[in-house]
Amino acid sequence: MKILIINSGSSSIKFQLIDMPAETVLASGLIERIGLEEGIVNYKTDQNQKKILQPIPTHEFGLKVVADLLQNEEVGVIKNADEIEAVGHRVVHGGKKFTQTTLINQSVKDSIQELFDLAPLHNPANLKGIEVAENIFDKAQQIAVFDTSFHQTMPEKAYKYALADDFYTEKDIRVYGFHGISHKYVSEKAIEYLGKKDSKIICLHLGNGCSATAVLNGKSIDHSLGFGPNEGFIMGTRTGSLDQGIIFYLMNKYNYSAEELNRIFTKESGMLGMTGFSDLRDIEDRAEKGDEKCQLALEMNAYRIKKEIGSYAAAMNGLDALVFTAGIGENSDIIRDLVCRDMDYFGIELNPELNKIRAKEIREIQKETARVKIIVIPTNEELEIAKQTFQLLN
Amino acid sequence: MKILIINSGSSSIKFQLIDMPAETVLASGLIERIGLEEGIVNYKTDQNQKKILQPIPTHEFGLKVVADLLQNEEVGVIKNADEIEAVGHRVVHGGKKFTQTTLINQSVKDSIQELFDLAPLHNPANLKGIEVAENIFDKAQQIAVFDTSFHQTMPEKAYKYALADDFYTEKDIRVYGFHGISHKYVSEKAIEYLGKKDSKIICLHLGNGCSATAVLNGKSIDHSLGFGPNEGFIMGTRTGSLDQGIIFYLMNKYNYSAEELNRIFTKESGMLGMTGFSDLRDIEDRAEKGDEKCQLALEMNAYRIKKEIGSYAAAMNGLDALVFTAGIGENSDIIRDLVCRDMDYFGIELNPELNKIRAKEIREIQKETARVKIIVIPTNEELEIAKQTFQLLN
Repeated sequence: MKILIINSGSSSIKFQLIDMPAETVLASGLIERIGLEEGIVNYKTDQNQKKILQPIPTHEFGLKVVADLLQNEEVGVIKNADEIEAVGHRVVHGGKKFTQTTLINQSVKDSIQELFDLAPLHNPANLKGIEVAENIFDKAQQIAVFDTSFHQTMPEKAYKYALADDFYTEKDIRVYGFHGISHKYVSEKAIEYLGKKDSKIICLHLGNGCSATAVLNGKSIDHSLGFGPNEGFIMGTRTGSLDQGIIFYLMNKYNYSAEELNRIFTKESGMLGMTGFSDLRDIEDRAEKGDEKCQLALEMNAYRIKKEIGSYAAAMNGLDALVFTAGIGENSDIIRDLVCRDMDYFGIELNPELNKIRAKEIREIQKETARVKIIVIPTNEELEIAKQTFQLLN
Repeated sequence: MKILIINSGSSSIKFQLIDMPAETVLASGLIERIGLEEGIVNYKTDQNQKKILQPIPTHEFGLKVVADLLQNEEVGVIKNADEIEAVGHRVVHGGKKFTQTTLINQSVKDSIQELFDLAPLHNPANLKGIEVAENIFDKAQQIAVFDTSFHQTMPEKAYKYALADDFYTEKDIRVYGFHGISHKYVSEKAIEYLGKKDSKIICLHLGNGCSATAVLNGKSIDHSLGFGPNEGFIMGTRTGSLDQGIIFYLMNKYNYSAEELNRIFTKESGMLGMTGFSDLRDIEDRAEKGDEKCQLALEMNAYRIKKEIGSYAAAMNGLDALVFTAGIGENSDIIRDLVCRDMDYFGIELNPELNKIRAKEIREIQKETARVKIIVIPTNEELEIAKQTFQLLN
């Protein structure tokens, strides 16, 4: 079954065509700069690679270019669009409603739209991707895979805030959590790898966004991103957790507007705010050369992660494995080292040599004597969406 | 040396006259409802107890009543006011400036005033208490003991937020921490009790306000209250930690003002918001009778404390003792039980019989086999202020 995976952003569409259940990626790519003067389509198969520069006025136009490439005599991988039996869409916010992967119909689309306020940057673009795909691949079944679903198993004590009831019942204030597609994928990989279904795992998804999930016996029971996407860990441009008093103080004393603060805390803070750089590699380079701001930023970043590990070990009353994933988690031996340093009380002991090795495979990097496994697992959100889409339809 | 301890609030003054270094409390009491139609002065010595109902128009008037009582032929404990050699004042906010107990002069008072914005509910009342005491006890030395000082040993990675530099340098945004007088007192008691200077201790101050401090070798290295007094644990009427996104969302979608939200999160949330009751005993009673909201509120409350314990165990890479103090910490065996349940991974195992015992003495309540000591230590902020005042002057 050929499944097209679509991750639609406000001015971009990431796509992969995957043959399931073989898990073979037939083609993949990225449409960028939609609506701008000059657009880009990157397209890749086993045999070919293409980069097309042309204006891409709309999402629909961009996806048509991709559909044409997929069927193109020279670089295509299918004969005609009808071979694509399903399109799996990443949808960031499923609110309280979507606890699992769902076949899309009008009512599902309406619900995704109702959640625009909760994910103003993502859900509108995700819905746009669905509508465009329905037009172009009109024979395919459209499926929504939600980034929030995996966290719907969290117990009430973990997902509620200490507010009066109506904030939850009427105003939908709760921990939703994000990166669920990735956390589900890597935690399942970890369980498979450990051969241990009853397990206590902490997944650290460290990429553009950063989050941790406490996974008890395969289920998310706690998560570091909360109601919104700026809580918990320090991120490239986001503060992560911040005392609410700071907001009221800055508004009151310095006349910031809420909008302004929201922008500053989301776009001009975190690693960028502290160092002037948002790319971790730049910060690591400078830290190594003695830049104190960069050193502090790395330490603060790792310190929060350490504390979250301790906190989830308490939530689960134990820890079998620590999983690093996503861009930073998979590639930064410096962050992994800082996080795991002085954690032997928890049985966390990194093997410095194994930590240095770069690879695309799943790998253990703890010392032989360590009680807790430290595993690097490359995440694959597209494959997870394909798996869930395939599962739903079969 | 007779030291008068003053804790001045907006409409109240708590006082104790303590003879140091003997630590003998000669008199103690509370002036209440200052500025209201009917005021109250409670006054107590070893021999006598007095409750005076009369209008108390000002702080100065109230403190004069107390000065008279202290010298009164019948109930007094001193011959004249000059016997009081020092007055020790609790001052809530010492900002970045006051890292230790300080002899008060005009410049110190100016600095306390400059910090009004950071502690609008407390510092003005504290300064008022200082000015009034200077007039009435003009022969005594006036000393300020700050609630924030103990936390000034926190490392940069723990007290900074992930913001651009100027938020710290210009706008004074950092973790200050509170309840420092109490945390210092009980952590020193714990170290003395354990006979172990190099120790890893977590102090849980659970009272009207609630906070945890990670105390490494006698020094505060992390703390759960942050920039302001509403962070970390769930409190009687305060939310504790809250995702910043909730504030922006509620302002944007439901048109709340910042002021309104600040009030709701501080006065109408926490245990009160969740259950309708702010007194923990009411909530515990109802929970026992099967009230689900009360049960959930207790569980959420304890869950956050558990997670903080894990997080500080990670920050210190170990844990020797867990200390419970303040109203709830000293008296609620239910909260202690919920916090310590399923924490044997950390070596935390409560002895249910010892936990039930009520006493005013320091006491251990863990199982014999437990690796971590669980100690209940009654806090005594007045005595701590007296100790620090005495130390400074000798």
